[in-house]
Amino acid sequence: MIITLEKAASLLLQQDNILILCHRNPDGDTIGSGFALKKMLQSLGKRVRMDCETGIPQRYEVLFGAHEDDGDFEPEYIVAVDAADRKLLGKAVEPYPTVNLTLDHHETNKDYAEYTYVDDKAAAAAEVIFRLAPMLGAKLDLRIATALYVGISTDTGCFVYSNTTAQSHMIAGELISYGINLGEVNKILFETKTKSRVEIDKIALNSMEFFCNGELAFVFLPLSALESSGVTEDDLDGVSAMPRQIEGVKVGITLRERADGTYKASVRTTSVNAADICSQCGGGGHKRAAGCEFKTSFEEAKAALLKAAEKVMYAE
Amino acid sequence: MIITLEKAASLLLQQDNILILCHRNPDGDTIGSGFALKKMLQSLGKRVRMDCETGIPQRYEVLFGAHEDDGDFEPEYIVAVDAADRKLLGKAVEPYPTVNLTLDHHETNKDYAEYTYVDDKAAAAAEVIFRLAPMLGAKLDLRIATALYVGISTDTGCFVYSNTTAQSHMIAGELISYGINLGEVNKILFETKTKSRVEIDKIALNSMEFFCNGELAFVFLPLSALESSGVTEDDLDGVSAMPRQIEGVKVGITLRERADGTYKASVRTTSVNAADICSQCGGGGHKRAAGCEFKTSFEEAKAALLKAAEKVMYAE
Repeated sequence: MIITLEKAASLLLQQDNILILCHRNPDGDTIGSGFALKKMLQSLGKRVRMDCETGIPQRYEVLFGAHEDDGDFEPEYIVAVDAADRKLLGKAVEPYPTVNLTLDHHETNKDYAEYTYVDDKAAAAAEVIFRLAPMLGAKLDLRIATALYVGISTDTGCFVYSNTTAQSHMIAGELISYGINLGEVNKILFETKTKSRVEIDKIALNSMEFFCNGELAFVFLPLSALESSGVTEDDLDGVSAMPRQIEGVKVGITLRERADGTYKASVRTTSVNAADICSQCGGGGHKRAAGCEFKTSFEEAKAALLKAAEKVMYAE
Repeated sequence: MIITLEKAASLLLQQDNILILCHRNPDGDTIGSGFALKKMLQSLGKRVRMDCETGIPQRYEVLFGAHEDDGDFEPEYIVAVDAADRKLLGKAVEPYPTVNLTLDHHETNKDYAEYTYVDDKAAAAAEVIFRLAPMLGAKLDLRIATALYVGISTDTGCFVYSNTTAQSHMIAGELISYGINLGEVNKILFETKTKSRVEIDKIALNSMEFFCNGELAFVFLPLSALESSGVTEDDLDGVSAMPRQIEGVKVGITLRERADGTYKASVRTTSVNAADICSQCGGGGHKRAAGCEFKTSFEEAKAALLKAAEKVMYAE
């Protein structure tokens, strides 16, 4: 059932022994929101702990301190943060048939909980938790402020993405006034590259070719190179975005060889329709980000992609 | 003479035929501040134009529209924005013995103008111009707001750097409410890499070696590679910062071969003292960014740098 944030606050104030669930493969928003909510509720004298199927990456302890979960208790109230679908909570939710409350910012939230509050204008769930604090009567402190800042800055790419609103900035301004060490926090969040990402950047740059008067950049990631560099899916996400960032490039294509001998193409564009390119190769997606797969040879896959891209680029 | 911002506003209100000067090699803050001030003063019926010794890069017209300078007039009042020293105005200031007013945010401002307003707590001169608007009685619009946003986001690395304050965010929030197309603006400012920067990244990644258990990354940029890639000084600045961004790296050293056969080292660090490393090689600088030069062979320069770095890293 969809409720107001005031109602969510009054529900939380009536509860104790609360379990907060973050979505699996957690990002800074689900962890920052969960941590901030936990500390707020603990400050009101409640027993609270937080869980995530795939664990909480260590850098969040570096960012806002020890988890300080309350020890073993039988949860009486289950709250999900930043999770649009029960499935995203994974194994952590399995023991509990009912999620009692979800606090979210995804337009696609499935209203799977007993009570649901969604603000789809918010750039991050952390904005929702920030607005909840005075309704709970909970005071912010430096650690809570840092956690909420991490949530907002993660989901906005540090205020770069177009989902950033005036509200995101206003809230960030208030949070910073608690004394957040922005230099340290943003260095951890945004300025650190893994060694495997450095390896894959090297592979990508060395294979990069330009076509269509420099408007199309084509990158090939051979399996042998991927295997020796120890890359993760996260690294691959980042590298697909890279060719499009080059001046003058309208279409960036990254073709990756898989272990089963097939090829996966990721197409990222600035003004050209990426879904139109991929649909010609049996794939699909969004206007600016789409993909398709090939069971052909590398040469055939590359030729098909270039042909499809040229057709769409010069038809527009 | 140091004055208040209110005094600066009252001086400007008394003047007409105003020339606004930006510092040479302009960045988004000097151009954004100058443009916004020009449009504000024009909206009050004054004749204003803006100048910069080294020209105004075209992307600022893309960002906030045509310059719309008022045509030829003999300037009666010279205003410098975001320039700490008269020298930084270059040839553009030569015809004018006196700069009448400077609006700045640099602690190092030399008070070279007749009247000087400096807010050294402001992350950008654009924050000063924003605060000036109501004192002038000038209304903001989308173009002025975009110019001021560009100023603030440029000087804070889009709210990443530690100079970002609560005020920076509060102002950005107000500016965004004028309807800035954040996705487009930030793409132009932060997500575009020049082709020569891509080339130099490739050279850097291919030459990168790790020492000291991965805590030291060493990059060599040979002259032949630099010449063939058409790099600029801007590109070189960016590439020096790159090795330090790699996970686990405490010291990033970039050694560049120059046309005269000498070598220039840029040292960037996280926690180690960069100036201490460079001072052992006859150079110097700041704690996190320092440099030194070598008239030796490449091998000798490299060996000296590694030895100096190890000494400082293991002494701390």
